[in-house]
Amino acid sequence: MIQAGVLGAAGFAGVQLTHILAAHPDMELAAIASDSLAGTALSEVYPAFAGGSDLVFCGSEELLQKGLDVVFLAVPHTASLDLTPKIVESGAVAIDLSADFRLKDPQTYEAWYGVPHTQLDLLAIAAFGLPELFPEALQEAYERHEEKLPVVVACAGCYPTATSLAAAPALRAGLLREGAVVVADAISGVTGAGKKPSARTHFCFANENLEAYGVATHRHTPEIEQILQLEDQLVFTPHLAPLNRGLLSTVTIPVGSGASVVSAKDAHRLYEEFYEGCTFVTVLPAGTQPRTASVAGTNRAQIGVTYDSRTQCIIATGAIDNLGKGAAGQAVQCANIVFGLPEGAGLESLAVLV
Amino acid sequence: MIQAGVLGAAGFAGVQLTHILAAHPDMELAAIASDSLAGTALSEVYPAFAGGSDLVFCGSEELLQKGLDVVFLAVPHTASLDLTPKIVESGAVAIDLSADFRLKDPQTYEAWYGVPHTQLDLLAIAAFGLPELFPEALQEAYERHEEKLPVVVACAGCYPTATSLAAAPALRAGLLREGAVVVADAISGVTGAGKKPSARTHFCFANENLEAYGVATHRHTPEIEQILQLEDQLVFTPHLAPLNRGLLSTVTIPVGSGASVVSAKDAHRLYEEFYEGCTFVTVLPAGTQPRTASVAGTNRAQIGVTYDSRTQCIIATGAIDNLGKGAAGQAVQCANIVFGLPEGAGLESLAVLV
Amino acid sequence: MIQAGVLGAAGFAGVQLTHILAAHPDMELAAIASDSLAGTALSEVYPAFAGGSDLVFCGSEELLQKGLDVVFLAVPHTASLDLTPKIVESGAVAIDLSADFRLKDPQTYEAWYGVPHTQLDLLAIAAFGLPELFPEALQEAYERHEEKLPVVVACAGCYPTATSLAAAPALRAGLLREGAVVVADAISGVTGAGKKPSARTHFCFANENLEAYGVATHRHTPEIEQILQLEDQLVFTPHLAPLNRGLLSTVTIPVGSGASVVSAKDAHRLYEEFYEGCTFVTVLPAGTQPRTASVAGTNRAQIGVTYDSRTQCIIATGAIDNLGKGAAGQAVQCANIVFGLPEGAGLESLAVLV
Amino acid sequence: MIQAGVLGAAGFAGVQLTHILAAHPDMELAAIASDSLAGTALSEVYPAFAGGSDLVFCGSEELLQKGLDVVFLAVPHTASLDLTPKIVESGAVAIDLSADFRLKDPQTYEAWYGVPHTQLDLLAIAAFGLPELFPEALQEAYERHEEKLPVVVACAGCYPTATSLAAAPALRAGLLREGAVVVADAISGVTGAGKKPSARTHFCFANENLEAYGVATHRHTPEIEQILQLEDQLVFTPHLAPLNRGLLSTVTIPVGSGASVVSAKDAHRLYEEFYEGCTFVTVLPAGTQPRTASVAGTNRAQIGVTYDSRTQCIIATGAIDNLGKGAAGQAVQCANIVFGLPEGAGLESLAVLV
Repeated sequence: MIQAGVLGAAGFAGVQLTHILAAHPDMELAAIASDSLAGTALSEVYPAFAGGSDLVFCGSEELLQKGLDVVFLAVPHTASLDLTPKIVESGAVAIDLSADFRLKDPQTYEAWYGVPHTQLDLLAIAAFGLPELFPEALQEAYERHEEKLPVVVACAGCYPTATSLAAAPALRAGLLREGAVVVADAISGVTGAGKKPSARTHFCFANENLEAYGVATHRHTPEIEQILQLEDQLVFTPHLAPLNRGLLSTVTIPVGSGASVVSAKDAHRLYEEFYEGCTFVTVLPAGTQPRTASVAGTNRAQIGVTYDSRTQCIIATGAIDNLGKGAAGQAVQCANIVFGLPEGAGLESLAVLV
Repeated sequence: MIQAGVLGAAGFAGVQLTHILAAHPDMELAAIASDSLAGTALSEVYPAFAGGSDLVFCGSEELLQKGLDVVFLAVPHTASLDLTPKIVESGAVAIDLSADFRLKDPQTYEAWYGVPHTQLDLLAIAAFGLPELFPEALQEAYERHEEKLPVVVACAGCYPTATSLAAAPALRAGLLREGAVVVADAISGVTGAGKKPSARTHFCFANENLEAYGVATHRHTPEIEQILQLEDQLVFTPHLAPLNRGLLSTVTIPVGSGASVVSAKDAHRLYEEFYEGCTFVTVLPAGTQPRTASVAGTNRAQIGVTYDSRTQCIIATGAIDNLGKGAAGQAVQCANIVFGLPEGAGLESLAVLV
Repeated sequence: MIQAGVLGAAGFAGVQLTHILAAHPDMELAAIASDSLAGTALSEVYPAFAGGSDLVFCGSEELLQKGLDVVFLAVPHTASLDLTPKIVESGAVAIDLSADFRLKDPQTYEAWYGVPHTQLDLLAIAAFGLPELFPEALQEAYERHEEKLPVVVACAGCYPTATSLAAAPALRAGLLREGAVVVADAISGVTGAGKKPSARTHFCFANENLEAYGVATHRHTPEIEQILQLEDQLVFTPHLAPLNRGLLSTVTIPVGSGASVVSAKDAHRLYEEFYEGCTFVTVLPAGTQPRTASVAGTNRAQIGVTYDSRTQCIIATGAIDNLGKGAAGQAVQCANIVFGLPEGAGLESLAVLV
Repeated sequence: MIQAGVLGAAGFAGVQLTHILAAHPDMELAAIASDSLAGTALSEVYPAFAGGSDLVFCGSEELLQKGLDVVFLAVPHTASLDLTPKIVESGAVAIDLSADFRLKDPQTYEAWYGVPHTQLDLLAIAAFGLPELFPEALQEAYERHEEKLPVVVACAGCYPTATSLAAAPALRAGLLREGAVVVADAISGVTGAGKKPSARTHFCFANENLEAYGVATHRHTPEIEQILQLEDQLVFTPHLAPLNRGLLSTVTIPVGSGASVVSAKDAHRLYEEFYEGCTFVTVLPAGTQPRTASVAGTNRAQIGVTYDSRTQCIIATGAIDNLGKGAAGQAVQCANIVFGLPEGAGLESLAVLV
């Protein structure tokens, strides 16, 4: 059994990792760390584990000395800059859910995150973790691991995952109209805002409310542009809605006049072919829109694609669970690939009801 | 007191009209009609009225014979085509919340609604009811009423109201980049889907879920294009989110290279000036986004405006209560204008909490 | 116009008071205080007031020097012990929403609140504010005010209001079986937990969850026992459910064998007669249960009453808005009575939709 | 692999069964039936299965001819009366989630369900399915199955399960005060009201609302009395709250004066000992209350127990997922026992987040 640990296990992504790893057939969850909760039982913080798990939080330093095979980082950005070198040094694979190793250009990182990147060597070798769009990056990580070289996987963010899965087939086919902007309006459940109580996450303010936030300034913007190879062509606007889990990104892509896709059927075929063989991405039948409830609690994405002949635009929608395919699920999927396990090990579950 | 009646009073917009009119200082709610519920007490269907109102539903025909001054139509489209002539004939002002008299071009109506328009004369004289954007249309309706001419007001739909209030200042200033599309992604609470129980409005399917619907086919599309004088340049995608009331429209407008607005400050000033003097539309301070909860239960709209210099786009957001400014509130506001009452009579309330 | 002020105006009860008083026909809201937010605009904290109110929070001391006629205290318990004497000294009527002057016996106060009562003189003259059950107390307060004597009204808490309105008709009729306990299981929306962000009020923990809390220890227990003249005969268990506003209390009352009420009809008649003439309490038709949504945003209570002949118990249910009849609405109702205004001034609104 | 089928697979309990059985390590889900949806793909009705399952609904008759080992009935009461004999005749074990075989006394069945019981032979041999409280009944069913005798398991209802798990330790210990009533106030999520759209399950009526229903008349009353051996001593009041899944029952049990339990510690020890060795029932630490979110999507129950010395009552709370331990989970647990599988096969999952 591969020995796994989670740093930042008390946050929403961390506990979701804990949940998946505790039931993983090929990994043993050897340690979960939370510096502020070291010594506390997991079930005390998350009573869902009462009667089901005896895990106790340890400190980060303690976790790093356990000789683990893989460490998942569910910590805030900049914390990963400090912790990742220690993980790599300890001989473990680092699967990072923070933003610290996602942006290839350290200047862009500094511009959007306000701090200089301090781990340029690791940044250079970090694999971007969005397997359906960058399989070769993870294949390379697998090979590095086979060769006992340091491995860092920078898992894609939640908005970038849903948005890019929806947009990539059209954009990689070169359909974008010249001079046009891509508009991604995305809606997230409140787990996306993190576990820390605040006015924004107070039930009475989040409930029965809709709002946009981070307009023109959200840090996932450069990440999506990097994935989709856009350059100042993306308007990304995230919104908050009153649900726990779920993320829907609606992407509008103006199509060029000479494009090969000129019908709904063309668009649908393009998408189906693009995701052929991808277990975790389902392109829905034409005319069907994805529901986030259908992927809640899972590592799955569902995609809808529409061609609007009036405006010559593709409208693609991507639904994920922000904590599943948008965070913990994808991280485990990446780890599975690095360790040569079946890609879906521990990730088979489906949502219920809808 | 002006004698008012509501047709289709049992639906969500109808009961909201009933609620407003029952407390209106200058109108007396003389009759509420629902053909399927004729004879039933309002408080039986909506127990919020128990202990507060003795109103009983009558039939439509009975209502039309009461010699009312104004009749509000909260009925499905095509039903208004039949009822509006009878209202006008009875001497009452018709305030129509359906879509039947909104589209000026009967061909467009037929193309999107699937039936021919049968009331071309009334269509020709119908005033479009969105007072902040078409004050002159309502002024003309006021004058027609003074002259005892037939008056029909076709109140704007919920999505068109929020979307157009957000987009109009930029588009009327001619800022739209040539060849670009306007993208409006809007999110609505479930009251927008109507009172009729269905799989879609079932609590367990709507709750904890987000989804787009009517992609590229929603009937509010031509209405918004008409309001904003766009021609096959609007991609409008509505979404459903788990809340009762509230509608947020996020509109992305690529700005032309020679445009006069080239900064956030410019954009904000443009919007503030545009809505100066409008009681019911508040442009929020720069950097602030509207919350639908802040306008729930009211006739108010709150607008946020952002200029993204990276992509040269304006991102404008408009929040309303879909049943308030998006339906019943706006209808009463229009009626107030037609009857020469203070525009805000009966509509002063603010939302609480947020 | 009566000059009114609110201390603790930034909390949920405080802002609800602000909302009601800002539209009150006979009171002018002269000042709202929040020591932590002094100098901040109300609309900044509660954007629902943007475009609708220019009020700015002041400090408590400043408010107390304004020579107001009435001051509402929406502050935590013990804070009222300090502030109420100052209000009374300033010549204003004190309408206290905290628990500090509710319990007639200072020993009981100390036992449940953990601090000694320091204002025994004011406690002695404080009127208990639940007008439908203690009309004479408020009549006396009115007379004291007429005579320019100090007036303090201790408004009933949210759970005590709903529970007592449901239980009082049966208990005052002496129906309780000897040796039996009264069981009140109540459910509250999350506004009842206050505005302060915490793990408990975090959207993701409150949403999609039900839980009991304060079992056998909730401080409203002695208050309800005082109202209903019970002595260690009440088991009161509050629960939290995922909604903003609304409180439902279900009270089970075993009936004595020689009781006069032995049928559903008897029980219903008893309740109807008890609340005859009470504007704000509606006893629903037999077989009908109250919905909290029907009273949300209002000062109303709806009551359902059932007699179970199998077990010889009355099951009475009381629905209120915890911030309305359970807090701010009731406070204004009490103030109206003290000042000789119509009891319902400023409190006429009905809930919509349900 | 045991061949399993589900009748009534399109309802909420049915699809939950489908979800569990599709991943069961020792059962193969050979057929799912829905007479109204025969021929339709499961993923069309429940898009959560899109990309994850190719199952297609068949008709009931077709399912019955497949020679299955076990058939789960997730059909309305009375439908089971017709179908169960056919299942038994086909040689399969019948695991019934309806109420048809729960009440041992056919008179009681007729009194509460309004129809005579037509399958007295099967009723006589039916095992009551609530393994933690009736292990011997399921042991007997196991033995009957070993001996190839007909087996019917009548799984306990959702309210009876949560209520009885909370109350049984105290009542079986004989603690109930003589002449006292047991009060069970329970709250359910909306999945408990079924999949059929109605005014009651409409999002806008269920959301932001609390209400009691079926007061003194709910059909789970005699079932709970049977389980707990009460005779007209139970007042059971169910409530509806705005969440999808989750059921909390709060049971107040007046304790007799000579009882052995006279402290919180006693009560807690009693409960812990009672459920020792029960995988799916966790008695929480004293002072801790269960959260339904902690058991959502699982077959687990969490129990809180409090002793109130003021009133000499035990207040016990039981939280389950109404579709999990309250329906599909428990049914699979019962089937596991009948077939001699590990009791928890296919039921290991924990809830996440809380």
